[in-house]
Amino acid sequence: MNQRSIFTIFILFVIGFILFYTGHPETIPEAGWRAFVIFFLTIIAIILKPLPIGALAIIAMTTATVTKTLSLEEVLLGFGSDIVWLVLAAFFISLGFIKTGLGTRIAYYFVTILGKKTIGLSYGLLASDLILAPAIPSVTARSGGVIFPITEGLAKSFGSTPEGKSERKIGSFLMMVAFQGSTITSAMFLTAMAANPFIISLVQDAGYTVSWGLWALAALVPGLLSLLLLPLLIYKVYPPTIRDTSDAPRLARAKLKEMGKLKREEFFMLMTFVLLLALWIGGGFFGLKATVAALVGLSLLLIFDVLDWKDVLKEHKAWDTFIWFATLVTLASSLNKHGFTPWLSQQVVGLVGEMPWGIAFLLLFLIYFYSHYFFASNTAHVGAMFPAFLLVAIGLGTPPMLAIFALAFASNLFGGLTHYGSGPAPLYYGSGYVNLKIWWKLGFLVSVMNILVWLIVGGAWWKVLGLW
Amino acid sequence: MNQRSIFTIFILFVIGFILFYTGHPETIPEAGWRAFVIFFLTIIAIILKPLPIGALAIIAMTTATVTKTLSLEEVLLGFGSDIVWLVLAAFFISLGFIKTGLGTRIAYYFVTILGKKTIGLSYGLLASDLILAPAIPSVTARSGGVIFPITEGLAKSFGSTPEGKSERKIGSFLMMVAFQGSTITSAMFLTAMAANPFIISLVQDAGYTVSWGLWALAALVPGLLSLLLLPLLIYKVYPPTIRDTSDAPRLARAKLKEMGKLKREEFFMLMTFVLLLALWIGGGFFGLKATVAALVGLSLLLIFDVLDWKDVLKEHKAWDTFIWFATLVTLASSLNKHGFTPWLSQQVVGLVGEMPWGIAFLLLFLIYFYSHYFFASNTAHVGAMFPAFLLVAIGLGTPPMLAIFALAFASNLFGGLTHYGSGPAPLYYGSGYVNLKIWWKLGFLVSVMNILVWLIVGGAWWKVLGLW
Repeated sequence: MNQRSIFTIFILFVIGFILFYTGHPETIPEAGWRAFVIFFLTIIAIILKPLPIGALAIIAMTTATVTKTLSLEEVLLGFGSDIVWLVLAAFFISLGFIKTGLGTRIAYYFVTILGKKTIGLSYGLLASDLILAPAIPSVTARSGGVIFPITEGLAKSFGSTPEGKSERKIGSFLMMVAFQGSTITSAMFLTAMAANPFIISLVQDAGYTVSWGLWALAALVPGLLSLLLLPLLIYKVYPPTIRDTSDAPRLARAKLKEMGKLKREEFFMLMTFVLLLALWIGGGFFGLKATVAALVGLSLLLIFDVLDWKDVLKEHKAWDTFIWFATLVTLASSLNKHGFTPWLSQQVVGLVGEMPWGIAFLLLFLIYFYSHYFFASNTAHVGAMFPAFLLVAIGLGTPPMLAIFALAFASNLFGGLTHYGSGPAPLYYGSGYVNLKIWWKLGFLVSVMNILVWLIVGGAWWKVLGLW
Repeated sequence: MNQRSIFTIFILFVIGFILFYTGHPETIPEAGWRAFVIFFLTIIAIILKPLPIGALAIIAMTTATVTKTLSLEEVLLGFGSDIVWLVLAAFFISLGFIKTGLGTRIAYYFVTILGKKTIGLSYGLLASDLILAPAIPSVTARSGGVIFPITEGLAKSFGSTPEGKSERKIGSFLMMVAFQGSTITSAMFLTAMAANPFIISLVQDAGYTVSWGLWALAALVPGLLSLLLLPLLIYKVYPPTIRDTSDAPRLARAKLKEMGKLKREEFFMLMTFVLLLALWIGGGFFGLKATVAALVGLSLLLIFDVLDWKDVLKEHKAWDTFIWFATLVTLASSLNKHGFTPWLSQQVVGLVGEMPWGIAFLLLFLIYFYSHYFFASNTAHVGAMFPAFLLVAIGLGTPPMLAIFALAFASNLFGGLTHYGSGPAPLYYGSGYVNLKIWWKLGFLVSVMNILVWLIVGGAWWKVLGLW
């Protein structure tokens, strides 16, 4: 990567230098323009990937400070953000699920009770994913680390492998459901995907508040409906040839037997998880922030030796996320603070402001959703488009909470479009059970289903909740 | 460790609960008292070590938030502190010295030019340590990772080993000089020891500012004198039997030949280091903070591929330090903010306030210095005693800068007293070249030399600089 990546970074700096010193629309404040240039080039860099995202974040921080676009205090602010710490703590907690084996045990348990038919088996995988979702913000760790290996193991146990040209027996179906399901479970909890707290921090920048409980409540009805419909849809258009899987529960029971009784660590993990959920759901009533609840959970896991501090230090993905996430939070909020996002929104509102808000918002929503064909990362997509689209939507007259939730959930669901569009996608795709053409076709089909469910049923549900 | 450590933590929580709800001197504000209880028990926990310091920091943060002693925002503030980031960035930069081999090369180079006599060899080791000190804030990494292996290698090459009862030939002498030297080089730069930036943040809390350049300037004369005298003193009281080491330069040259020409990475490391020093020394003139300079250095190392982002993520010691350091910065500054430290200082001033400041300060200084016999960590010692001692000293009429520098330098030098008193101590001691009795004797002797040099010559030098 060496020389090419140095060259890419050099070019980005040259572009940045030119943009800094050439004219820009007079209506943008100077500080806002500079913040935009740094943010924009950071997003471009994240897409081109000359260096890992964490390294790019360090360089972006440095550039923002050296050019005096932001003060050192402003740049470092993100590292003390409660939302950033929610993600960091949740990452460490999720380590407990994986390390203790509790995540795997839960998945096998669902196979035992739901797995007699192929379709039931797929619901079992979704149920496991859903149960783990609130406390595992890395969808890659959750779906890739827990659900994927079990899915693959099940497929193989039924003699369904790509090598044997027998992928359609059952593997292709299960893979597709498990993968698409992961985007739905991610949408359902604030702590189910790393970019969700980022969305909340952007929403806060725009002046609105969404608690952990409200997010979960708003997602409850459309989320469950989506999870219910998904296997039926895939079963219809991409059916497995094996439909009876009475062997699966037996297999899962054997695995559970092998795992033995609930270990001490698993028990403490489970208790902590239950407490955590209770605090996340009910904490709002006595003013306990989601981050504090997560810190309580993490402290308990450390005190009761479920997590070793060394495990925490070795959780590189968490530190990586911490660095880039905090930096993006800082940069994105500086765009808003220094007047860029409001300016951009005004321009777009000027263009489409004549339409009724319903149509204009639908248009915005679809552009937001399907532009994910061009993104390989939810976070980059959210950072690039969410703040402006939200402000525009609200500026056009869309009820704020409707706009917030529709765009927030879309930010998860669009991950199912392509084989590179979300963390677990390359993993499921790489297993070879589904070819590219079908992957994209089904990805599009599921996106239509999701959009209908989340906009129509979701919209109605949010109306019932009095959110608009 | 398991059950015992859970028990220890439980007891600490019980003590905390009792202290929270029993009466306390009415003159302390309630918030200050609570902050003190949490801070005090955290320091006790760091000393008892039921869990690693990072885990204790997480638990302390959580406790402070849940008990509403500090708000979540206050608790997380430390993670955006520029001083904390100076340490984090410097840790990553120092990785470059060790990874590229440049640190080792520098040490061998000094052996080549200074190593013909045993005493010259010891100066060579000190010179290498001194050169590396500004950019390697982990004295354990610098002295333990670079200097110690070379010292041990040299001793062995002269047939001096503890196993062969030949330690006194040359090994004992070199080990003692290299170890005691590390506490002196640590004192000489703000970025030469992890607790130094902590000291600066405490000094800031007390309302004073010390730049990177001023620290280095203030330490220059006493530091160089100490480094000059140290080998002479040890040579006198604990002489090696081999005094002529004409083989050492040959050996070092062979090692250098083995390393080959300066590698590309080493070259970039060297250039970055030179730039970094220039920015640290001269940055003050154009308002560039030490942290920004460090971020520039880190960015360059990442761009030019000297450091891989994966190396950075794997540098567990840095992440560990980041967590506990930020937490201690937060807790210690909350003691000050909520009125505890000022209250404590008033009490002590009330006790010794009748003495002339010179005598009172000398007394304070000696108590501060020699209480390190009871500490196994510079950071714990600094956190527990520095803020109150500084405020008391100033309250007694000691010129502030005199008090700041004397106590700050002492915070490094006292690390040489025992075989557990600083990071590299257990390593040098563990090599077996020096027995415990001699270690403590020499430790005390060197402490007397250091105190005389730093207080008398140092004091005069700071007077010349106009600091008091």
